[in-house]
Amino acid sequence: MTIAFDFTNMMAGALASGQGITESQFSNAQKAFSAAHAAVESQRASLGFLSLPTNEALLASTLAVADNARGKYTDVLLLGIGGSALGPIALRTALRPYAWNALDLSARDGFPRLHVLDNVDPLTIAAILSRLDLTQTLVLVVSKSGGTVETMAQYLIVRDALARAMDETRARQHIVFVTDPTVGALRRIARAEGVTTLDIPPNIGGRFSVLSPVGLLPAALIGIDVRALLAGAADMTQRAQSDSLATNPAGIFAVLQWVADTQHRRAIQALMPYADPLRDLALWFVQLWAESLGKIRPDGTHAGPTPIPALGATDQHSQVQLFMEGPLDKTVTFVAVSGRQNDGPIPSRHSDIPELAYLGGRTLGTLLDIEQRATAGALAARGRFNATLHIDAIDAWHVGGLMQLFALATAYAGSLYGVNAFNQPGVELGKNFAYAMLGRPGSDAARAEWDALPKPDPRWRV
Amino acid sequence: MTIAFDFTNMMAGALASGQGITESQFSNAQKAFSAAHAAVESQRASLGFLSLPTNEALLASTLAVADNARGKYTDVLLLGIGGSALGPIALRTALRPYAWNALDLSARDGFPRLHVLDNVDPLTIAAILSRLDLTQTLVLVVSKSGGTVETMAQYLIVRDALARAMDETRARQHIVFVTDPTVGALRRIARAEGVTTLDIPPNIGGRFSVLSPVGLLPAALIGIDVRALLAGAADMTQRAQSDSLATNPAGIFAVLQWVADTQHRRAIQALMPYADPLRDLALWFVQLWAESLGKIRPDGTHAGPTPIPALGATDQHSQVQLFMEGPLDKTVTFVAVSGRQNDGPIPSRHSDIPELAYLGGRTLGTLLDIEQRATAGALAARGRFNATLHIDAIDAWHVGGLMQLFALATAYAGSLYGVNAFNQPGVELGKNFAYAMLGRPGSDAARAEWDALPKPDPRWRV
Repeated sequence: MTIAFDFTNMMAGALASGQGITESQFSNAQKAFSAAHAAVESQRASLGFLSLPTNEALLASTLAVADNARGKYTDVLLLGIGGSALGPIALRTALRPYAWNALDLSARDGFPRLHVLDNVDPLTIAAILSRLDLTQTLVLVVSKSGGTVETMAQYLIVRDALARAMDETRARQHIVFVTDPTVGALRRIARAEGVTTLDIPPNIGGRFSVLSPVGLLPAALIGIDVRALLAGAADMTQRAQSDSLATNPAGIFAVLQWVADTQHRRAIQALMPYADPLRDLALWFVQLWAESLGKIRPDGTHAGPTPIPALGATDQHSQVQLFMEGPLDKTVTFVAVSGRQNDGPIPSRHSDIPELAYLGGRTLGTLLDIEQRATAGALAARGRFNATLHIDAIDAWHVGGLMQLFALATAYAGSLYGVNAFNQPGVELGKNFAYAMLGRPGSDAARAEWDALPKPDPRWRV
Repeated sequence: MTIAFDFTNMMAGALASGQGITESQFSNAQKAFSAAHAAVESQRASLGFLSLPTNEALLASTLAVADNARGKYTDVLLLGIGGSALGPIALRTALRPYAWNALDLSARDGFPRLHVLDNVDPLTIAAILSRLDLTQTLVLVVSKSGGTVETMAQYLIVRDALARAMDETRARQHIVFVTDPTVGALRRIARAEGVTTLDIPPNIGGRFSVLSPVGLLPAALIGIDVRALLAGAADMTQRAQSDSLATNPAGIFAVLQWVADTQHRRAIQALMPYADPLRDLALWFVQLWAESLGKIRPDGTHAGPTPIPALGATDQHSQVQLFMEGPLDKTVTFVAVSGRQNDGPIPSRHSDIPELAYLGGRTLGTLLDIEQRATAGALAARGRFNATLHIDAIDAWHVGGLMQLFALATAYAGSLYGVNAFNQPGVELGKNFAYAMLGRPGSDAARAEWDALPKPDPRWRV
């Protein structure tokens, strides 16, 4: 079991036409990385995600709730948005890729299905409520702040539906909150109504919370081996003890992306796994990287590379043309998988037709692997920065390790870019404008600012 | 029924701090747009997508195949990748958003479910074959070239499964090919085995093919009103007869993105619908914009903005922080929907808790609409370029109109950027490397080039 990171194709020696990070650029970055590593270590007490892999108390409380639910429900409905949804979705897609929504309970090994409502579209909510038997459904309400507007709106609708489907005592038993231990609306309701509640430790932000009860509870409920998930993350955390760019994979990832952006103008950074189950891992990474690093620095300048999600081989027929021939503004990080489930030979047929003849006897896993290597090589041959994370299998251990690698890399990158990776001040203005329009008390200043904005100009409408 | 495009927030008058396209930049672009419009009109014979909305013969042949299948199948399995998959998926998600995979045939109004295999992951293919009853399944094999390697691999596996599930005569009746009328492996097989085949006209490339049988056949099979889809597209094509930036929405979209990129360094261009059913429309757009414009110009320079997919309100909790405070390198195009299905008031509860009190009585549609306007206003207040496409409803007419708007805009943008929007030469090298590794005959030159590439360097692996 290992996660290997090959970054040959980020380096000048492998890339065409004078492109690539030079050896001296890389070795010179060691000093900046040592400082970033020290900064993260010094904040350890306030960066709760670092200790999640070994937080036995939090795991025990999560497993107690999951155990209590065992066998009682056919479905789990998670209400949440952003960090409260992307982690659970990524885990579900990666580790229960098709079992999770099989119709037949036995095909799901007896575990419930997990539905995640990550938006407030009325069509989606109506559709899911029309399909679920709420008497067989456990509802998870997940919000770090305990008052996220979209999650509160979802909750009011689903809570009302529960109240109509069963008596009040039972309705309260069908709900679990996952939220901050002290603040927020969910905590107040939990106290008033005696709803079971799991804590998101105060020192863990939403997008760093996948290995807290935010991700672990839904994962445990649908049969994911959460101990293996944590063990993989613990192994990566251990490797990240080192502040050497010779050994710390998370540090190397952060430094390479930072040098590529700031010294080579490669500000667009794609994550491209070659495996369907890792499709949603890329979306989870996009939030982590974008919301953590897209910031105004203390000196007023704007920082932040733009992460984009991709999927191999599918995106060879979509985004790869741009990656190959567009501006020299990107990096691509592949995830390659050596051991694939359900792989078998492609049947031979039409051996007289050249487009088919050479496929017979190959496996799809081989085809995916060859396509990944071919795409990486082609990008390198055209001076395009790329790197590959190699995993042995898509299992809980490796997925936990990958997620912790990216979380650690994000923390380091915040320090390298000179921004606070753990807040999101930029979304406040839009929130406040929405509150003003919704008439939430205390929104007078935002209302005034909103009213002062230029109005739609009919000259610029068609 | 209308599609309105409000681009106030792209213009200098609305944006903070000296940002935005000036009136003179916009009016100066008229000349370039007139030339682009003339170039597209002059290529009309080779740009088949322009006449798809009124191609009655192609529609009739498609509907004949769909009518013949009526009532015979519970499931449709589409094999395809890139342009052969993204259009059908976008239509399915937009126009049969939850009905398409309802378990109950009556909840689907008697229409079959549509499954799209858009990759060669063995896990996905095994899962789907284990669930489908092939005796009740129609298999569509979609490839413009008729020889796409991933689609051929899918086909060999599914064809073998069909042969095991039924006799040969019947197996051939369970397949429809959608491909070029003259060339490619599928056409050869069709002739040899008498498989029903629909044409993709030679002058229509994969990513411009959604209104050809590529999209229309699966759409018609699952109950989408394809005539309304084409009518919406025809209306937009009609509006695009004008070469005036005062009236042609597709032209305005193309010009704004091009000016934003080339004169304001806004090279990252997000499409962000505020509606779950339009989630996959953004992925379809990403292929269209990226693969068409990401090109090497005749003078050797690299062109192409980078499109990214987003979804409101969900991405307010993911990418919007970066859009607000990251580098001034983006545009955001929203899609706002005025008429939403299944909308109703949010129940009141906990009116003593501020985070919930103001929500009761509002609808989710109102919440989404307010959040879209708030986000647009907040971006503008921070100097961030954005625009909004307003549609009355998510129905076939409006979706057809949007798709044709983007297709037309892409054609214009190709001309503005000085690239050929209709080829994809950049993916050939990776394909050839893969063919070489797979041992496809005729790959000797690629094999030699592959063998000459730098090898993985153990110094750059951890």
